[in-house]
Amino acid sequence: MPDPLDEYRQATEAAMRRALVTDDPALQPLYGMMRYHLGWCDASFAPLAAREGKRLRPTFCLLCCAGLGGDWRQATPYAAALELVHNFSLIHDDIEDGDPLRHHRPTVWAIWGLAQGINTGDAMWSLARLTLHDLRGVGYSADTVLDAVALLDRTSLALCEGQYLDIGFESRPSITLDEYEHMARGKTAALFAAAFQGGGLLAGASADVQRRLADLGLALGLAFQIADDLLGIWGDPAVTGKPAASDLASRKKTYPVAYTFAWEAERGLRDLEQLYRATDAPADVAAISRCLERAGAREHTQQATRRNHEAALSLLATLPLREPAASLLPTLIASLLGRDY
Amino acid sequence: MPDPLDEYRQATEAAMRRALVTDDPALQPLYGMMRYHLGWCDASFAPLAAREGKRLRPTFCLLCCAGLGGDWRQATPYAAALELVHNFSLIHDDIEDGDPLRHHRPTVWAIWGLAQGINTGDAMWSLARLTLHDLRGVGYSADTVLDAVALLDRTSLALCEGQYLDIGFESRPSITLDEYEHMARGKTAALFAAAFQGGGLLAGASADVQRRLADLGLALGLAFQIADDLLGIWGDPAVTGKPAASDLASRKKTYPVAYTFAWEAERGLRDLEQLYRATDAPADVAAISRCLERAGAREHTQQATRRNHEAALSLLATLPLREPAASLLPTLIASLLGRDY
Repeated sequence: MPDPLDEYRQATEAAMRRALVTDDPALQPLYGMMRYHLGWCDASFAPLAAREGKRLRPTFCLLCCAGLGGDWRQATPYAAALELVHNFSLIHDDIEDGDPLRHHRPTVWAIWGLAQGINTGDAMWSLARLTLHDLRGVGYSADTVLDAVALLDRTSLALCEGQYLDIGFESRPSITLDEYEHMARGKTAALFAAAFQGGGLLAGASADVQRRLADLGLALGLAFQIADDLLGIWGDPAVTGKPAASDLASRKKTYPVAYTFAWEAERGLRDLEQLYRATDAPADVAAISRCLERAGAREHTQQATRRNHEAALSLLATLPLREPAASLLPTLIASLLGRDY
Repeated sequence: MPDPLDEYRQATEAAMRRALVTDDPALQPLYGMMRYHLGWCDASFAPLAAREGKRLRPTFCLLCCAGLGGDWRQATPYAAALELVHNFSLIHDDIEDGDPLRHHRPTVWAIWGLAQGINTGDAMWSLARLTLHDLRGVGYSADTVLDAVALLDRTSLALCEGQYLDIGFESRPSITLDEYEHMARGKTAALFAAAFQGGGLLAGASADVQRRLADLGLALGLAFQIADDLLGIWGDPAVTGKPAASDLASRKKTYPVAYTFAWEAERGLRDLEQLYRATDAPADVAAISRCLERAGAREHTQQATRRNHEAALSLLATLPLREPAASLLPTLIASLLGRDY
């Protein structure tokens, strides 16, 4: 019997590949840059052996759709659109952060320049939205398709709002935990919420079930972002592919750092803030680490991951899910969050 | 009696202002940057006296809608979306071209940096699409709203495709007139086509009338871009607000330049190409001007504007338009294209 998750991934990948094609010879490099970002070809646009992307958001979406009695194959264009929106945001993030590498490969802007980089992200975003129109004529009412379009449009705005906050953090001396969560809800969790809710919407779920799916996605997205923050400081370089404590070296304002700011502020201390302010020299990673250790930031961050993970599982338990989604979702969620909490 | 064009502009402006609002205090500066770009506030987000924007695309859209018997007030969200898409593309263009000024004001990226600049454009694009959902529940069927969404989504992709070609022109020694037109159709004309066709769509026009409206918008958009190219070389600095021959100083590959490349190539000459290749020194504007003059580029470009203008007027004459659109459209088109052809 085929693994349903493999089926979902393959169907999503096929829908994405159908979207990223043009018959216009002059535009081939534009589509080539988009395919390059997705790992389908090298920088000369020669095809690469298929890289098995995780395609987390489409997988959650289609699993929810099937688990709630929908026909997941019909929902595939929406799943593909989610993944394309996610990847458009990565192309722009790489420019906004000045990152020359992603997954050990040069980023689009690093190869083709800033202007083509921005525009390639814009083109992928356009294609994401066009993909949604494939939901028409496969059995959904025009109202349902419009609801799916509106969901993705609201989510896109939330992504930009979260990204605005995240960029703003860089020029701030410190941030609060509330500010961190506000940012992470938009930047990361909103697209998870759109994956879960969209799966329910396209299975014909009630407004109440859709609301719980959205809350589940938000909790999982927050857990995912906080777990990722743990890895950025305490992750094994052999696993993460980044140097140890890389998020401290770059003075990124992640959850453990926001927690330590709060811990110190309660005690009238400003050690971490001073270390983060001294941007005229490389970050003193050892001293920053000692601040985080004194505050118990690692344990507190693990607790926050656990708390959001448990919130997601509690919401999951309230949903009328069929097999195999009912068994697969908790496993998939656990594997997504790793073991460090 | 109120001028209908003023009514259209005011209704569009009101819809745009309703879209660019958030009640979230932390996000005010994001919305402030968008309002700044639109000329509604200064860089500290203090409101400015209303600047009378031309809002060309919304005006054409609503005039077509009314002229074909539609209720233009219902179509206003679409008109606002057109203008927001246009302005999102300007925010990104300014970054891609490295322009620090637009209409004598610092550009968004020049004030708030590259990262916020890219993201502010993305946010405006999200809001443009969200605006379209206001078409629901004012009398349009869900299918018609989806058709309008699809039209704007296809147009957004065409914009990115045109922009890809335009960016690519910068690193090319020369371009052909066909390549120029391919670029201008996407970068400029597609959004005019979406304005005319969308006005017809929302008036309930037939597929055939919509096709003619799209062709009219394409012809007008090409005429507009080519007339703009004339101004960029031979325009009066007092009118354009740019130095004389500014497009030659920046070695921009506009219509007159593409025409001169072709004229020289037919005669085995490569003078202009060599002048455009010598990018290690400032452009020799006098020598470039002589090449254009020898080829008769100005007259030929004026002819191309006239040809596209006439094509637009011929298409307009086939449309079953009521007053006041029937009288106003030719006047508006003529005023848009100026007098230099």
